[in-house]
Amino acid sequence: MANKAITKRDTDFAQWYTDVVKSAKLAAYSNVKGCIILEPNGYAIWENMQKTIDYMLKETGHKNVAMPLLIPENLMKKESDLINGFAPEVAWVTEGGTNKLEERMCIRPTSETLFSDYYSSIVRSYRDLPIKYNQWCSVMRWEKETRPFLRSREFWWQEGHTIHETKEEAEEETKFIMENVYKKFFHEYLAIPAITGRKTEREKFAGAEYTLTIEALMYNGIALQSGTSHYFGQKFSKAYDISFTNRNNVAEYAYQTSWGVSSRMIGALIMVHGDDNGLVLPPNISPKQVVIIPIGEEVKNLANDYNELLNKNNISSYIDDSENSPGYKFAEAEVNGIPVRIEIGKRDIENGTMVLVRRDTLEKITVSQDVNIVEVIRNLFKDIQENMYSKAKKRMESMTYKANDLKEVEQIMNTQPGFIKADWCGSEECELKMKEIKGTKSRCILDEPLISGKCVACGKEAKHLVVWGIQY
Amino acid sequence: MANKAITKRDTDFAQWYTDVVKSAKLAAYSNVKGCIILEPNGYAIWENMQKTIDYMLKETGHKNVAMPLLIPENLMKKESDLINGFAPEVAWVTEGGTNKLEERMCIRPTSETLFSDYYSSIVRSYRDLPIKYNQWCSVMRWEKETRPFLRSREFWWQEGHTIHETKEEAEEETKFIMENVYKKFFHEYLAIPAITGRKTEREKFAGAEYTLTIEALMYNGIALQSGTSHYFGQKFSKAYDISFTNRNNVAEYAYQTSWGVSSRMIGALIMVHGDDNGLVLPPNISPKQVVIIPIGEEVKNLANDYNELLNKNNISSYIDDSENSPGYKFAEAEVNGIPVRIEIGKRDIENGTMVLVRRDTLEKITVSQDVNIVEVIRNLFKDIQENMYSKAKKRMESMTYKANDLKEVEQIMNTQPGFIKADWCGSEECELKMKEIKGTKSRCILDEPLISGKCVACGKEAKHLVVWGIQY
Repeated sequence: MANKAITKRDTDFAQWYTDVVKSAKLAAYSNVKGCIILEPNGYAIWENMQKTIDYMLKETGHKNVAMPLLIPENLMKKESDLINGFAPEVAWVTEGGTNKLEERMCIRPTSETLFSDYYSSIVRSYRDLPIKYNQWCSVMRWEKETRPFLRSREFWWQEGHTIHETKEEAEEETKFIMENVYKKFFHEYLAIPAITGRKTEREKFAGAEYTLTIEALMYNGIALQSGTSHYFGQKFSKAYDISFTNRNNVAEYAYQTSWGVSSRMIGALIMVHGDDNGLVLPPNISPKQVVIIPIGEEVKNLANDYNELLNKNNISSYIDDSENSPGYKFAEAEVNGIPVRIEIGKRDIENGTMVLVRRDTLEKITVSQDVNIVEVIRNLFKDIQENMYSKAKKRMESMTYKANDLKEVEQIMNTQPGFIKADWCGSEECELKMKEIKGTKSRCILDEPLISGKCVACGKEAKHLVVWGIQY
Repeated sequence: MANKAITKRDTDFAQWYTDVVKSAKLAAYSNVKGCIILEPNGYAIWENMQKTIDYMLKETGHKNVAMPLLIPENLMKKESDLINGFAPEVAWVTEGGTNKLEERMCIRPTSETLFSDYYSSIVRSYRDLPIKYNQWCSVMRWEKETRPFLRSREFWWQEGHTIHETKEEAEEETKFIMENVYKKFFHEYLAIPAITGRKTEREKFAGAEYTLTIEALMYNGIALQSGTSHYFGQKFSKAYDISFTNRNNVAEYAYQTSWGVSSRMIGALIMVHGDDNGLVLPPNISPKQVVIIPIGEEVKNLANDYNELLNKNNISSYIDDSENSPGYKFAEAEVNGIPVRIEIGKRDIENGTMVLVRRDTLEKITVSQDVNIVEVIRNLFKDIQENMYSKAKKRMESMTYKANDLKEVEQIMNTQPGFIKADWCGSEECELKMKEIKGTKSRCILDEPLISGKCVACGKEAKHLVVWGIQY
């Protein structure tokens, strides 16, 4: 039974999204324009994302630091592409206490400038390299149109900033983060299939030599840029003077990267897995993995026993012992996306059974109370996780098209948008022609053979196979 | 052997502090005036503090959320004590992108306004109460003079904000957090003894009915306000309209609290436990608890075995296998405050021994390689933790004086400052008279019998026993 507070996903996807965010109590609109409040359910997901990615980063030699919130305008200006890229969308602090500031400062939209300035003060020799630091924080970009998780003036993220002795090592880091951290995290934890590749010149990050991106496809066929990893070469290190004495005893500028994923991933979780009943969370990222719903007084002890047993075995379980009706509790568990629900009623005591309900398929499984419940639940998690991934993968594949010319692109985007693979000559002009079709943009350049060898827009010789899509 | 990069603690305490912060790589000055950079060693301590306090809060029913970074001026103004208290020390955002804002917004100096505004929108009935939310974030206060960890324009903290059905429950929460979270954390993790009590009217938080505080005494006898817990009564709930239908079906305003501890605690750790060799960290808060220093190639395998064994048993251990000399490594381990150092040399292989060095006493303990090293280290941690606490406690006690009149206060503060217990009549005038003596301020009112019954300043009848001190 679909949740009445939630618009049907196929009726109005945008409204469905807003309804799920609200019903699952993930975020609330604040009275600060364009800024959201992460409510407990939303923040708990973010904490789990943080915990997992933080572990992956620490295991691979990255360390956390905290940089200042503000960037003086002159520091920002040292790298001209960056200031040009971000100036239209930063918030400026111009007064401190009762005084007008001599120099205005912006709230960080990203922290390349601060890390670069700091690195220039601590690096002397190749022996100091690599330096691989990361920070968890919120950043601010003065967006005009905002949507919870997808685009808001303030958002939460991690930003890694590393410097290296050689070009090769820095490029390896750029790729490692994308493939071995982000893509892996999306696959194994979020159960989200994604495409990774290189952004075009037009779409790359201001100041980067190149940008790698991870692109996911939402249920409605709209693409979500879900994380980026930038290779800067020596651009920032020249602008901010991050030089070191290399192995040949010669001064050299460091090779630099930066990369980040954000609370936007919560938006991806909702829009890839959610359904008409609300949120559907993969067990590997869900803060609460099991909810036990005892129906009637006589099963309370049994429910407590199971709850204790599961938690003792590192399965995050809780009992819904509120005064609400069982039906209300079922709906609540569903809207919150709890992967497995255990229902135990009076009849189950008589029969020695209980009922497990999978959130992903809503399938009910009656099991004997004699089973090794920890093992059963663990296997079920594995099943759910795999099923959610493969379902999302099939959908992405069924919505990934090939196109040979603009007419085909138009037809696809007017029928059912999705990813379009099409050859491209490399010119910005042709990118702009694609954009005229419902805002279709290049998502990334793939390292795959061309389709026809001819540019989808101009028909001339193609250089790259590109994935295109309409973006959030 | 004292560290040469560090000024002697008894020679120049302020310089010693700065040297330790720098040598232990805890924080760096940034090029953003008044803002620091938390470097990996400093941030790792902060992460451990967060982890422990977060666990304590979650175990007692608190949930994490994230509120916006900015507060519109009008929202701030709704509670007049608050705006009057903070207006002189906030940073104002007046431009967003290329536009001047219609209403300026401040960067949160604290978030009572945002939580209150949010609570007013989500609370309907007593059934919704209590709500106990917390956030981990940085806040900004436009300080003029700054010192790393002790006072900087930006600092990191947690701020808890709760609302309750009754006065009693809210007051209980205010006290619970102070005694069962903060004081417990200071004792059991930071090994810092502290005094808790109530702030005077003059010293309480703007807008609070009363403020509880935790006050610690630094090595040099200066007091550090290390955390506060406020009871607001219905003041904010009236200003921000947080009303609910109570059990008698009557509309009532909620009873509110807020409380916080910050990265300032890192300053307390340094100034309570540090010595001429650098930082000294209690095992229960140290990110790295054991460093193993192999001396010579032939002991490397043994060092690896021990390192693996310790880490497997949840003891955070690492090997210093850098190319530096053993002496350099010893000094490095000491400056970083690692609780236990294990030295293994060639002769130890022959003798079947190894050397453990306690950071707190620098005592060397030779043990056989046959001992159960995990157990030995665990016991040593317990010893170190207790020893650090009792040493700090003895010092605090020896620096806690009693005074009957201003002359005695003056004499104490001119000789060796510390905590002074003295009776007080309750008048602000007398507080100001005390302040004339080297800035001596009331730290808190104690729930203890009076000494002489006469006010230390005016000699009239006293109402409270107060702890006084010079503060950071």
